[in-house]
Amino acid sequence: MAVYTDIADDEVAEYLRRYDLGELHSLKGIAEGVENSNFLLATDAGQFILTLYEKRVAEADLPFFLSLMEHLADHGLTCPRPVAMRDGAALGRLAGRPSAIITFLDGVSVRRPKKDHCRMAGSALAAMHLAGQGFELTRPNNLSMPHWRALFDKSAGRADEVSAGLGGLIADELAFLEASWPADLPAGVLHADLFPDNVFFLKNELSGIIDFYFACNDMFAYDVAICLNAWCFEPDWSFNVTKARALLAGYNEVRAMSEAEFAHLPVLCRGASMRFLLTRLYDWLNVPPGALVVPKDPAEYAARLKFHQSVAAATEYGVDMNAR
Amino acid sequence: MAVYTDIADDEVAEYLRRYDLGELHSLKGIAEGVENSNFLLATDAGQFILTLYEKRVAEADLPFFLSLMEHLADHGLTCPRPVAMRDGAALGRLAGRPSAIITFLDGVSVRRPKKDHCRMAGSALAAMHLAGQGFELTRPNNLSMPHWRALFDKSAGRADEVSAGLGGLIADELAFLEASWPADLPAGVLHADLFPDNVFFLKNELSGIIDFYFACNDMFAYDVAICLNAWCFEPDWSFNVTKARALLAGYNEVRAMSEAEFAHLPVLCRGASMRFLLTRLYDWLNVPPGALVVPKDPAEYAARLKFHQSVAAATEYGVDMNAR
Repeated sequence: MAVYTDIADDEVAEYLRRYDLGELHSLKGIAEGVENSNFLLATDAGQFILTLYEKRVAEADLPFFLSLMEHLADHGLTCPRPVAMRDGAALGRLAGRPSAIITFLDGVSVRRPKKDHCRMAGSALAAMHLAGQGFELTRPNNLSMPHWRALFDKSAGRADEVSAGLGGLIADELAFLEASWPADLPAGVLHADLFPDNVFFLKNELSGIIDFYFACNDMFAYDVAICLNAWCFEPDWSFNVTKARALLAGYNEVRAMSEAEFAHLPVLCRGASMRFLLTRLYDWLNVPPGALVVPKDPAEYAARLKFHQSVAAATEYGVDMNAR
Repeated sequence: MAVYTDIADDEVAEYLRRYDLGELHSLKGIAEGVENSNFLLATDAGQFILTLYEKRVAEADLPFFLSLMEHLADHGLTCPRPVAMRDGAALGRLAGRPSAIITFLDGVSVRRPKKDHCRMAGSALAAMHLAGQGFELTRPNNLSMPHWRALFDKSAGRADEVSAGLGGLIADELAFLEASWPADLPAGVLHADLFPDNVFFLKNELSGIIDFYFACNDMFAYDVAICLNAWCFEPDWSFNVTKARALLAGYNEVRAMSEAEFAHLPVLCRGASMRFLLTRLYDWLNVPPGALVVPKDPAEYAARLKFHQSVAAATEYGVDMNAR
């Protein structure tokens, strides 16, 4: 969490003239979002989030992300909506960076989700999958299985610096995943990063989901696997089957998973562990000088991977197929 | 600017039960304030700033700072006001740190103040000096002249690492300041850190001043000198006499400086330069590992010091004593 780019009051006042939002009331850099600089912006028209897109987000992907938020909001999902400029464009330029203003969403993320939070997160993920149907733009998942080997190659020589045997664990698992990865499960637009940070709750109800900057087209059940990893492990890295059952039940209340999707959950969870293990490993080994963000521990995802390797069938995630 | 301490949603919800502010709507860590962790807090009752006091602020000083804000707000200054808990206390404890909730102030700070901003800042400083009269608590200025030599001793051996000759410049100046420092000018409660960051403007009017965590008792004209340094030099470190004239005029419209205060401005400006030069020099030479804050360049204040050394009389700050 950081503000990478500082902006001056007069730059923002000038920028606001392109919008119908009235005059600037206040502007605070906020510690939210790892990839971009975010500001809480208040104007005559209310509260908004102003985002400057930093170099980790590809500028060519921004129309996909912004149009997706618009589409999802139009189709009933509670998520930020891009604010159009007077000329209709959502994507602007400020302080030398691509920029956008999106609506402000009330609510707070929970640091330690309880069972009910997991259920609501599952439902929201399913609601996003349904709301995304009919969205015309596509964006390939550039962090999916076919990309993992190349990503690992960047860190392979140093993986054992993080923990002994990590390189071997990843190499063996990559071979397994390449041989076992499903191809024909139901697909559409995924959030692909629905961690507790990105889900807001207000008075014990889910009030919205944010941060669509990893969204892409892939198998829906892979998004469920990412969520299971993000929501259903305890701080000591142990798996909480009660939370997993709640998350899967919440998902299925809104979008029923097929038997094939259920059956592939273990391999998808292994893949979801691999994806975050590989990016965290790379970030861990390549902290830029003067970094404002402390890299996340890759070992957390190595532990999740090992757990899923021990799972013989999807029923171990608390799913009772007969009860559906 | 940084958020040093992360707080969980449930800790904040629990903490809020001590207040009459209703339920939590949102909480965003904000990149404001170098010394503390600040959060923009929204509840049923509106918007507030939640501050966790980190170790650079002495806990024993917090009642002074919070009571001062209360006193100044009661006496007509637009500044944040501490929100009392149900039991009447302003100072709480959250995430293991002293904490307070203060009212939110609309407005934005200006990165490049213009003449009119300087005039308004001068008036606000004078208004604070007047509003502070009658405030019963006192806090000595522990960054004033008698403390500079001890502060310099911590960096003296390495000062020339920053720029050749800096150690000698400071040593000579310290001897001058110790011999020339005034003692009997009008005194009271100073802001002591009224940089442009700490002054908010809204629709071209000053909307409030913030950050009283350096406030202390000392000579009023020394606060004016701190402001002249903070507001009236250009990014290339050159002195802008038009801005200085505006700042001093704005100050005098609200509180008339005495002839003795005017006459001492050059030495007070030299002292104000020394105070920031010494703290920046120390911070520059002692960046903690993993620091989130980039230290400010001490050379900027060495340049201000050299400028003020060249000033023969206060009239060079644009002050026309005959026109008062």
